Amino acid sequence: MKKINFSAGPSILPQEVFEQASQAVLDFNGTGLSLLEISHRSKEFGEVLDEAHELVRELLHLPEGYHPIFLTGGASSQFFMLAMNLLARGSSAAYVDTGTWSSKSIKEARRFGIIDVVASSASEGYTFIPTDYTWRGELSYRYMHITSNNTIYGTQYHKWPEVDMPLVVDMSSDIFSRPLDDAIDKMGLIYAGAQKNMGPAGVTLVIVREDMLRHREGELPTMLDYRTHIAKKSAYNTPPVFPIYVSMLTMRWVKAQGGLEAMEKRNSAKAKVLYDVIDNSNLFKGVARKKDRSLMNVTFTLKDKELEKPFLDFCTENNCVGIKGHRSVGGFRASIYNAMSLEGVQLLAELMRDFERRV
Amino acid sequence: MKKINFSAGPSILPQEVFEQASQAVLDFNGTGLSLLEISHRSKEFGEVLDEAHELVRELLHLPEGYHPIFLTGGASSQFFMLAMNLLARGSSAAYVDTGTWSSKSIKEARRFGIIDVVASSASEGYTFIPTDYTWRGELSYRYMHITSNNTIYGTQYHKWPEVDMPLVVDMSSDIFSRPLDDAIDKMGLIYAGAQKNMGPAGVTLVIVREDMLRHREGELPTMLDYRTHIAKKSAYNTPPVFPIYVSMLTMRWVKAQGGLEAMEKRNSAKAKVLYDVIDNSNLFKGVARKKDRSLMNVTFTLKDKELEKPFLDFCTENNCVGIKGHRSVGGFRASIYNAMSLEGVQLLAELMRDFERRV
Repeated sequence: MKKINFSAGPSILPQEVFEQASQAVLDFNGTGLSLLEISHRSKEFGEVLDEAHELVRELLHLPEGYHPIFLTGGASSQFFMLAMNLLARGSSAAYVDTGTWSSKSIKEARRFGIIDVVASSASEGYTFIPTDYTWRGELSYRYMHITSNNTIYGTQYHKWPEVDMPLVVDMSSDIFSRPLDDAIDKMGLIYAGAQKNMGPAGVTLVIVREDMLRHREGELPTMLDYRTHIAKKSAYNTPPVFPIYVSMLTMRWVKAQGGLEAMEKRNSAKAKVLYDVIDNSNLFKGVARKKDRSLMNVTFTLKDKELEKPFLDFCTENNCVGIKGHRSVGGFRASIYNAMSLEGVQLLAELMRDFERRV
Repeated sequence: MKKINFSAGPSILPQEVFEQASQAVLDFNGTGLSLLEISHRSKEFGEVLDEAHELVRELLHLPEGYHPIFLTGGASSQFFMLAMNLLARGSSAAYVDTGTWSSKSIKEARRFGIIDVVASSASEGYTFIPTDYTWRGELSYRYMHITSNNTIYGTQYHKWPEVDMPLVVDMSSDIFSRPLDDAIDKMGLIYAGAQKNMGPAGVTLVIVREDMLRHREGELPTMLDYRTHIAKKSAYNTPPVFPIYVSMLTMRWVKAQGGLEAMEKRNSAKAKVLYDVIDNSNLFKGVARKKDRSLMNVTFTLKDKELEKPFLDFCTENNCVGIKGHRSVGGFRASIYNAMSLEGVQLLAELMRDFERRV
């Protein structure tokens, strides 16, 4: 029986995407070849790659001058690569520390410039999005880096920072979950490991605004230079064919559902179902501050720790998996990315209410 | 109808691997979840990752001290990454230039040390493997880098260089195609993009002998440091789940066929079929010098250039695809990696003889 998967990532994708991807592994679009054996320079894969780039542009309404590229190495590789590409020796950038992933991005960027942590919610367990920035007057910041959604703590930016510098945003866990509207103009660079809202593990989307690259001095290894991949449209070397294909199918699905406006509406409705249970419960307790709650990862604990194991078992028996919280926070985390249905969320909500009634 | 695929890479994989991979995308081993949605930290994927590492060890008979890791970014990323990890500033390495891929590895390594090209077959169109080395007495070489098989020209090392330094070998196009036997002791580092003999595009195997890392000074970005991935057994961050799984299935298949000894026997027999046609033909002409001919990529031209297009069409009509040569060499290239059957090769040989009789 198909399980309902609340994993934080890799995570649920639309069932029709699984079906199309499975078929393509046997015979890709009637070519008589598996998708896994076709040349990345073939006309057939060229079309996939073109459509994937085009769908990113369409879904996010990217203006001229923004270049989507598909890389590998995960967001973890972007932590150093973006700093390497955007900073010259001695230049500086502002970083907001909202948790594990931000902290890693700060650590890796420090090798390439002066990294100033202008705000942090570390002292309160990263349970909110800090907005009081402390600036150092002597620095001229090239960009401000933020993590738009924090999977571990269940926090999310619902308002983009109002600052006079480009934003560099790790959107790994909420890309394509909501429209950017005019906010795109604030974005200097966006990156996202695919394995939440966009596709399977093995590909990373980076969107570079071209003026962001003008400060760089010296040469980088060819594969680490964004300009290589922009110039070659993500096919300088053999790209990760299958992960890109599945991401393309997922973006097609998002578009067919009504695009990012529809996703946001659906995601808000889904999150409300779970937060309503939490807010009306004497047993469950939310982790994140209300105003910064994530629409992607609903984190909660049980007031009675003894009941955590029975609750987890109860969910598993009822076909809901992947809700165990990250070890650094404990408790539970229901990840309800784009592909999670309202019905799936309602089932979990029902299990929560049921469990509370029983204990 | 299933086509016979002679592509240089991504390329043919065993049909049973396609079938198992296709099924796993729908339901992975009866878990009720797609392979694409399971956590990379799950017990189920942990087993895949363990088995993949273990199969590399088994197939190549790796001694203690050799660490297989699964990375991304292709061999193209290893060109700079290996030099970054193995060379200290001012140290030097010997490189043999046997074509496009060697040349790129030389270019990228030059950023990290003194790279001395000790032999090259460039002046003769890379049609052979050069073995007359010119050494610079003042240099103390950390390693010698070679490309064991050159897909574009159809050349391959059949005897490993006898030198008093560790070999660093790009085996992208012939890994797992033959045993290394005692030659493994010569190897300081082996790397291979998966998309020929090992699996689909999207994962790169690197095998590091641990003493090779002792010269490094200073810190590298976490994701670029081999030690990160050795310590975390290829799971420091989210690895490319599906490409690793398919590679594991392919290695399982190699093992079931009798391992690398069996592969070599089969590959020799397959190559002989095509080279025999070429050597007994008045129409087809081999590209590479006989003694250095590749068992993986059989390159040939037609003495009458006018007949190239008709021959290509003839092959396509008869269900054989992917034999067009690389643009830098022209003519034809039949890639006959592990997964290509003897029957597939015999069909192509028959088409070649047939075509010659007709014209």
